[in-house]
Amino acid sequence: MARVEPVLEHAASDFENAVSRYLEFLRIPSVSTDPAYKDEVRRAGAWLEDQFRSLGFEATLHETPGHPILLAHHEGATADAPHLLYYGHFDVQPPEPLELWESPPFEPATVEGPHGRRVAARGAVDDKGQVMTFLEAFRAWKAVHGVLPAAITVLLEGEEESGSESLPGFLAEHAGTLREASAAIITDTNAWDIETPAITYRLRGNVYVEVTVSGPSCDLHSGLYGGAVVNPLNAMTEILGQLHGRDGRVQIPGFYDDVQDLSAGERNAWTALNFNEAEFLGEAGLTQSFGEAHYTLLERLWARPTCDLHGIWGGYTGPGSKTVIASEASAKLSFRTVPNQKPAKIVKGLEQFLDARTPPDCKWRVEQFGGSEGILVPMDGPFMQAARAGLKDIFKRPAAMVGCGGSIPVVGHLQKQLGLDSILVGFGLSDDRIHSPNEKFELKCLKNGILSHAAILARMGKIAV
Amino acid sequence: MARVEPVLEHAASDFENAVSRYLEFLRIPSVSTDPAYKDEVRRAGAWLEDQFRSLGFEATLHETPGHPILLAHHEGATADAPHLLYYGHFDVQPPEPLELWESPPFEPATVEGPHGRRVAARGAVDDKGQVMTFLEAFRAWKAVHGVLPAAITVLLEGEEESGSESLPGFLAEHAGTLREASAAIITDTNAWDIETPAITYRLRGNVYVEVTVSGPSCDLHSGLYGGAVVNPLNAMTEILGQLHGRDGRVQIPGFYDDVQDLSAGERNAWTALNFNEAEFLGEAGLTQSFGEAHYTLLERLWARPTCDLHGIWGGYTGPGSKTVIASEASAKLSFRTVPNQKPAKIVKGLEQFLDARTPPDCKWRVEQFGGSEGILVPMDGPFMQAARAGLKDIFKRPAAMVGCGGSIPVVGHLQKQLGLDSILVGFGLSDDRIHSPNEKFELKCLKNGILSHAAILARMGKIAV
Repeated sequence: MARVEPVLEHAASDFENAVSRYLEFLRIPSVSTDPAYKDEVRRAGAWLEDQFRSLGFEATLHETPGHPILLAHHEGATADAPHLLYYGHFDVQPPEPLELWESPPFEPATVEGPHGRRVAARGAVDDKGQVMTFLEAFRAWKAVHGVLPAAITVLLEGEEESGSESLPGFLAEHAGTLREASAAIITDTNAWDIETPAITYRLRGNVYVEVTVSGPSCDLHSGLYGGAVVNPLNAMTEILGQLHGRDGRVQIPGFYDDVQDLSAGERNAWTALNFNEAEFLGEAGLTQSFGEAHYTLLERLWARPTCDLHGIWGGYTGPGSKTVIASEASAKLSFRTVPNQKPAKIVKGLEQFLDARTPPDCKWRVEQFGGSEGILVPMDGPFMQAARAGLKDIFKRPAAMVGCGGSIPVVGHLQKQLGLDSILVGFGLSDDRIHSPNEKFELKCLKNGILSHAAILARMGKIAV
Repeated sequence: MARVEPVLEHAASDFENAVSRYLEFLRIPSVSTDPAYKDEVRRAGAWLEDQFRSLGFEATLHETPGHPILLAHHEGATADAPHLLYYGHFDVQPPEPLELWESPPFEPATVEGPHGRRVAARGAVDDKGQVMTFLEAFRAWKAVHGVLPAAITVLLEGEEESGSESLPGFLAEHAGTLREASAAIITDTNAWDIETPAITYRLRGNVYVEVTVSGPSCDLHSGLYGGAVVNPLNAMTEILGQLHGRDGRVQIPGFYDDVQDLSAGERNAWTALNFNEAEFLGEAGLTQSFGEAHYTLLERLWARPTCDLHGIWGGYTGPGSKTVIASEASAKLSFRTVPNQKPAKIVKGLEQFLDARTPPDCKWRVEQFGGSEGILVPMDGPFMQAARAGLKDIFKRPAAMVGCGGSIPVVGHLQKQLGLDSILVGFGLSDDRIHSPNEKFELKCLKNGILSHAAILARMGKIAV
């Protein structure tokens, strides 16, 4: 079995070259939301295609209805080596507002910070810096041993920041070969802090709907009708104002039926994380947490389902006054769900909730915008164990096993379409300002990411499949 | 004392000429909201100036910051005759949407309807047709007797449909002379039905505010924060959803303190009106009335204070989904008030209501857009009695004494700035489609209006002042 130590040594000694390649990658303005940058997105994909080919991968930039997707494959050292699927993306968020950047977003600037050198650029961490961590780990393995300890397929997309619309179709088309992988490794999340690695093993799902409550057949004058007829805006606030009880629990019938409580082990592990609640809230200008009684802030974020209004509108919203009773009002809202909750059941519960509260002469209607289920990756699977061990090899401390309150759609797609569990291991920090001006990545994080992927690959290569 | 009978006979025999003059007036497209029609608004005022001058009035079209205001004055037959102030407006609503008109809005069409001839045009009733009723009554008096039985000041404005912004300043400027009047007569309201005259003696006031609830210092991602932080949109619906109790009563502290109950006499009189609730609701596509328990629909409309939301907005309101927790939400709402309620007390009550319900880490703010008090004109004053008697002279049945759920700002201005009570006597019908395409006025209503004003003037001329 090939030894990992020389690989780590090589990666460390080659790090300045890796940084040069990283800066070259960052100079490509691959903004996927803006059609003006369409060619640049392709150029970023082609740049990666070249990189993987230079490491002996069979690599092809595939056309899609949107931006291209890069698929690259390398056989393992032995026929019984496990097959791993790595995912990342080479597109970036738009850099605007430009005037808030301290240096141009696509001219990466290396500056000194409290943790040593850092690089400021759009995509510094999300997700170009993260993609570099496994690319350079593969390079080090190849350089030292000429082979990789596992069969590797790399899937890199160019429209993650603009909705990944082409991804499900692409996965379906290539399901035959992609299903051969035993696990997926996604590098697009954060470490716990600069000294502590993290694996995200829980994601919430999401059920997004638009609710409209309508009443009179036309807008009415509140002087002539007010006080004697139903007002859909008042009705809307009365209905939606009952979404939560005084204890913060969502009042949709059956909402908590399928919610599983945290194990004592998980709860204790989360408590041991010593999450800095005041800092988390302070960043949003808040002083206290809010929500469901009897759960800690982290539990509310990672393990409890929610209901949030995202938008509400109706009637006259211009300057000054207009005394109208509008004929309808609408709201957008979503439920963050936890593993085992089913979107269809939640929508049905919402409909019962609306039925029970909508006043006479009013009607409700619900339009649904997608729905994804919560994800819980088993903590004791062999690939998860290998990832935890590999991270500990480098960081010399156990990885924080964390949740994420949002959803990462690719994880659901890989689970649903390919039956693959994802190991979410990433190296960003919460102060990296992703999607904002002056996005940055610590070079220490980049280096630890490269070393960690090299070590994880060694650990995973030993798994018998 | 001059006799009224020959005046009525003259008005009846001259009616076709009056109709010709009315149609001429309707052909002027005096749309006050649209600057493109500025000259036409002035032309309508000048047309009236000519009419009143031809009747021996001293008439002047006064400049204002907006559209001009016509002031015309005629002495009474005797020095001790009472002095009356007549109010109306010569501007009209925009005619749009034009495609819904069966004949062009400024080419008045005389057509047969169930009540005989009617005229379809923008302004047919509101307020050009109504203004013609007293103009032609004055003409008949002058033609028969050469004098008027009362001193008359006519105040006609050109921006009622666009907010009457110049009116308060104009009243203040001319308060010295206008205050010499003993009563105001406003002709801009409806009869009860085509056979039954009406006087509006109750108007609700209005307190209009915009409420904003703010929370986090910036918009947040509902995946990363949802369930653990306050959501201003949810808070807004929870707060405003409590504005009404289950019994339909407004929950603002002290809201009903100053509300006076109807007298048994008023309640019985309103019951005797046999108001067609099903028809009223049916026109708005509704099947049942709504609101405060233990009050009839008419009481809720005319004699009970209310709270209606007019607009609400916050967060993401575009197509599709965005999982944002918005930092603030706003709503416009107003309270219809009844006589004796004070706007300042209601705003203070609202502030207490908001204080008591706004969650930690959220703030509320209130912006007020004007406020008017409810109006109750004593039913037994001499001018009111004269108006009721004059209407009965013509219609041969008592006038319905009715309320109006809206406010008519000029009534408040005349009361506040000049100390004048207003007699609201008008001849429109509820199906006249004011402000809508195919606005019309029944010629029977026009004629009864002219005769009624001639008779009311005779009755009022006899009041000793």
